[in-house]
Amino acid sequence: MPRLVTAFSNPTVKRLRSLRDKKARKEEGLFLAEGLRIIAEARDSGRLPEIVMFSAEGARHSLAADIIAATEAAGGEAIETTPDILSKASGKDNAQMLMAAYRQPETTLSNLDRSAAPLWFVAQSLRDPGNIGTILRTGDAVGAGGLILIDDSADPYSVEAVRASMGAIFTQQVAKAPWNEFLTWLRSGSGQLVGTSLKAMQDYLDADYQRPCFLLIGNEQQGLPSAYEDACDLLVKIPMAGRADSLNAAIAAAVMAFQVKASWR
Amino acid sequence: MPRLVTAFSNPTVKRLRSLRDKKARKEEGLFLAEGLRIIAEARDSGRLPEIVMFSAEGARHSLAADIIAATEAAGGEAIETTPDILSKASGKDNAQMLMAAYRQPETTLSNLDRSAAPLWFVAQSLRDPGNIGTILRTGDAVGAGGLILIDDSADPYSVEAVRASMGAIFTQQVAKAPWNEFLTWLRSGSGQLVGTSLKAMQDYLDADYQRPCFLLIGNEQQGLPSAYEDACDLLVKIPMAGRADSLNAAIAAAVMAFQVKASWR
Repeated sequence: MPRLVTAFSNPTVKRLRSLRDKKARKEEGLFLAEGLRIIAEARDSGRLPEIVMFSAEGARHSLAADIIAATEAAGGEAIETTPDILSKASGKDNAQMLMAAYRQPETTLSNLDRSAAPLWFVAQSLRDPGNIGTILRTGDAVGAGGLILIDDSADPYSVEAVRASMGAIFTQQVAKAPWNEFLTWLRSGSGQLVGTSLKAMQDYLDADYQRPCFLLIGNEQQGLPSAYEDACDLLVKIPMAGRADSLNAAIAAAVMAFQVKASWR
Repeated sequence: MPRLVTAFSNPTVKRLRSLRDKKARKEEGLFLAEGLRIIAEARDSGRLPEIVMFSAEGARHSLAADIIAATEAAGGEAIETTPDILSKASGKDNAQMLMAAYRQPETTLSNLDRSAAPLWFVAQSLRDPGNIGTILRTGDAVGAGGLILIDDSADPYSVEAVRASMGAIFTQQVAKAPWNEFLTWLRSGSGQLVGTSLKAMQDYLDADYQRPCFLLIGNEQQGLPSAYEDACDLLVKIPMAGRADSLNAAIAAAVMAFQVKASWR
């Protein structure tokens, strides 16, 4: 049976709230997801939370009730609380009626199965967690295997990234690696590394994309360092018609991914 | 000569700060842009601010100095202030060293020249100003004419939208209209209205796109209402490979726009 907690000073409430901070997420190895939609998405992908916290109203939905029961059956913690405490824990006035903490999967390059999908995203030093989440969501839609975060990146398990992923944080694999480690891993198997560059001569619509294709996305401000471009098997250009010379990083990733997929039809 | 202002209570400082609120933006008919990059982008597009505020360090850059001088020559107001006041006015700890207020163009459907571009975005009730800005940025890159905001939409002149547009707020036309008014205007000239729908039979890669093409994007949560889908000349489907059944609105807009453009090669 779920415990009823009505004090904000309750340790589990505090623990959930602490997961908004990167440091706490790292120490605990947990991350937060908010709202029935994404928590149901997680369950559909075979993932149950370690802790689920909900209001009486939140538990009224049969799907939510199922997830709460399944969480307890699996040894997890279920806590009923007040809308006020949910708001405080989520830091939002209009909090979701359901929030949950999940274990962060420990995906490393060595346990990433590149043959599991024909397409992967590789992103260098992304700063915006919303872009990371959006790339994961796009990856899910386009049938990618996941996202490899290179160098110093925003946290894919931040609340903003998880929210923008719309559940894809549970379906896409996420690994982190320094560039050199990634290159060594990439070259230890098959894989075409594709970068986009305004310097490239080849139009992205005419290129020959190989499976598995690793789409390399540069940092929001600087784009790809030249050494990273030089390491690519293929550099293509998305022609820009306007005054601006760049696309948002998540947009560029999506335009490339859908074109790669289209070229394989 | 720029005035030196060191008091946060200065009316112009207060006025700039007030432009973070939608109500004040509407009353004043102004909007804010922050940072040299976007303000230079505006100037390249022939737009100067009515007010520019900067720190001594901000004015040291020759491009910034040019813009400040040009603003004054055109009858605008130039204010030098402290980094602290810039931070307070922008509501950020690490404020840009330059911020400026621009007049909102009064673009209505009746003065929108549809023949100016082969591609236009039409977005219904977008909630996220970041999506609006990102669509404008994509529009600039893909050579679209602009964005028509249908029904009740987030403000394209909000700080978040302007920032996400990366300057495209100055190069793309932006109009607002209720759906019925938009439809009447659309049907008074040439134009193919294209919607994306999971119910559509036709793959977006196989469709015949006509110029000018109006890409209709649905609200982030609900997608397009069926009546809006019914009004489209063409409904296409972006096939989804994953568990999720949708893309972020700005991503879907970009994938469609680049495909439409590719189909015209």
